[in-house]
Amino acid sequence: MRVLTGKESIETRAVWFERGMVRMIDQRLIPQKFKIVDMADHHEVAEAIRNMTVRGAPSIGAAAAYGMALAARNEADLQKAAEELKGTRPTAYDLFYAVDHMLSSLELGDDPVKAADAYADQVVERCRLIGMHGAELIDDEMNIMTHCNAGALATVDIGTALAPIRRAWTEGRHIYVYVSETRPRLQGMRLTAWELYNEGIPHSIVVDGAAGHYLRKDVNLTIVGADRIAANGDFANKIGTFDKAVLCHELGVPFYVAAPISTFDFSIASGDDIVIEDRSEDEVTHVGKERLAPEGSPALNPSFDMTRAKYVTGFITEVGILRPDEIDKVRREKFAQEGEL
Amino acid sequence: MRVLTGKESIETRAVWFERGMVRMIDQRLIPQKFKIVDMADHHEVAEAIRNMTVRGAPSIGAAAAYGMALAARNEADLQKAAEELKGTRPTAYDLFYAVDHMLSSLELGDDPVKAADAYADQVVERCRLIGMHGAELIDDEMNIMTHCNAGALATVDIGTALAPIRRAWTEGRHIYVYVSETRPRLQGMRLTAWELYNEGIPHSIVVDGAAGHYLRKDVNLTIVGADRIAANGDFANKIGTFDKAVLCHELGVPFYVAAPISTFDFSIASGDDIVIEDRSEDEVTHVGKERLAPEGSPALNPSFDMTRAKYVTGFITEVGILRPDEIDKVRREKFAQEGEL
Repeated sequence: MRVLTGKESIETRAVWFERGMVRMIDQRLIPQKFKIVDMADHHEVAEAIRNMTVRGAPSIGAAAAYGMALAARNEADLQKAAEELKGTRPTAYDLFYAVDHMLSSLELGDDPVKAADAYADQVVERCRLIGMHGAELIDDEMNIMTHCNAGALATVDIGTALAPIRRAWTEGRHIYVYVSETRPRLQGMRLTAWELYNEGIPHSIVVDGAAGHYLRKDVNLTIVGADRIAANGDFANKIGTFDKAVLCHELGVPFYVAAPISTFDFSIASGDDIVIEDRSEDEVTHVGKERLAPEGSPALNPSFDMTRAKYVTGFITEVGILRPDEIDKVRREKFAQEGEL
Repeated sequence: MRVLTGKESIETRAVWFERGMVRMIDQRLIPQKFKIVDMADHHEVAEAIRNMTVRGAPSIGAAAAYGMALAARNEADLQKAAEELKGTRPTAYDLFYAVDHMLSSLELGDDPVKAADAYADQVVERCRLIGMHGAELIDDEMNIMTHCNAGALATVDIGTALAPIRRAWTEGRHIYVYVSETRPRLQGMRLTAWELYNEGIPHSIVVDGAAGHYLRKDVNLTIVGADRIAANGDFANKIGTFDKAVLCHELGVPFYVAAPISTFDFSIASGDDIVIEDRSEDEVTHVGKERLAPEGSPALNPSFDMTRAKYVTGFITEVGILRPDEIDKVRREKFAQEGEL
C-alpha cells in the first residue's frame, strides 16, 4: 500500500518480517500517527493481536504465522505457542488457519520465516486476484459503499473489499467511495479513509446511520469484507454489516462480500454457529479517555454481526465471483488449496 | 422529567419561562453537566436553537414560542423576530407552527407569556396522551428499541417516543430499552440514556450499526420520534431512522412513530419534498476538539433521513394510534386543533 508520510510516499505492508523481528504498522494510532512496532517473540505478537495493534482477519493470520516463526526460531514449545496465538481473538478464522498451516510446515522442517513469508505472500496474491475479479463489477462513475476496514491494513496489502476499488481506480475509472465510519472503533473513518486518501481515491466519511440515506440516493454497489463465512454462505463481519446487507436487499443495490477462500469455514454449517465476540463496553461509552455516556448507563458491544447468505449478491474470491448457490465450488477449491500447502 | 442532580431528585421541564427569562437545560452539556441557561431576548433564543442548546422539534417549538413572548415583551418587531426564529433550523415543522401560532395569539392581544405557556402546556399534554395510547403497545417483559432523543428533553417534558416507555414503566411493566447511540451527535447515548437512567428504567446503549443485530435477536418493538411528517405518512427523523425502519420491516418488528399531530405537515405531499438539513462535517470527523478522521478525508453530515410510510406500523398521536392509511383522521384533527388555537 502507498503511505504518505509527510513529504515522502512509501510502499509498505501491514505486517512483515525483518532483521529477526516481526514488524507491523500500529493500526491503533492511524491516522494521527504512522508508527511501526517491532516484536521479538510470539508472546508480543499474541498481545498485538489481542490489543488490536494488528487487526483484520488476513493480517491477523499473517501476524500469527510470523508469531509461529518467531516461536520456532526462539525454540519455544510450538503447541503452546499455537494455543496462545489462537486464544487471542475468537471470530477470525484466518487466525486458526494460519497457525495450523505453520504447525504443519514446521513439522515438515520448512524454514520458519520462509514459511511465514510464503503465507503472507499468498494472502497478498489472493487479494490481487480478488481485486482483478472484483474490478469487473465497477464501471466508470460508480459510487461504492464499504464498511469497516477490509483494506491493505487488514490483509497485509491491497485489501479484500478495497482491492476491487484500488484496481478500478488504477485502471482509470472515476469512482467515489462512501466510507461508513464503523462505530465503535471507527475503522472506516480512521483506516479506510486513510488508505483511500493515501491512494488519492475520492471518498467521504459518513456515519453508520447514514448508510440507508446514501444507499437509496446514489450508491451503485456495496463491497464489504468477511471475518468468517459458513458452509451455507452466512457470514460474520464487523457490526453494522448486516444492516447494510438488508438495506441493499430492500433498495436493490448489489451487495458483495470480498474474501479469500481461506475465510470460508466448512466446519460451520450456518451463521448460527459462528461465535460473536463481545468486547468491552468502554469502546462504546468512551472516546479516548473521555466517557460520553451517562455514568449510570451500561452499553453492549458485539464486535461482529451475522448476515444470511440470501442477502449476498456474490462472493468476490481469488478464483472469481461466486453466487451463494455456487459455494460448493469454493469447497472444492479450498480442499485443493489446503492440499497444496 | 425527573433529574438526579447529585443527591437531589428534581422535577423539571426542558424549557420554560421564569422571572422574565426563557430558561432551558443546556442539552449540549448533558450528561456530563446539568446546567440551566437563561435568555433575555429572542436573539439569544434563536442562537440557542441554532447551536442546539435546545433541540428536538417540540422543544424547539416551545423555545420559539417563548422567544416570541420575549420579543413581544421587549417590544421588538414581531415579524422580524418571527423570521429570525424560523430561520434557525430548516427541518422541524413545530418551529414554524409555534411561531405562527404566537403571531396569531399576539395579534389577538393575548398575554405573551401566558400564550407561550399555554403552547408549552399543550405540547406536554399531547405527550401525556401519546404515552397513554402508546403504552398499550407495551407488554410486560418487552424489549424496545429507540433512536436519537425523542424524550422529555426534546418535547418540553415526558417525550414522544419515550412517553409510552415512561408510562409502561410507571404502570409497573418490566421493560428493557436498547438505546441507539445516534451518531454523529450521540443524542441517544448522551440524552436518552440519561433520561432513562434518571427514571430508573433498565437500558443499554448500542452503536447504530448494532441495530440489526439486536432487532433480529430480541427486540419486540421500535418507537422513534419524527421531525416532520408529510401528508402521505412519509417522515423525516434523525439520520439512522430509515435504516431501522427497513430492518424492522425485514425482520417483522413493529415500527412506530410517536409524534403529536402538530408534526404532520399537510402542505407537503410526500417525503421527497422534505428539506433535509446538512450540518458541518466537523460533527462527524471530530469528537470534542479532537479530529479522528485523516486530515485529507472529507465527511458528509445529513442531519435527518426520510422514511416512507410503508415502513410505519403506526403513528402514536395524542388522538390514538393510526395506521398510515388512516392519516386523513389526522388531517381532520389537525384542522380542528388549529381552529381551537
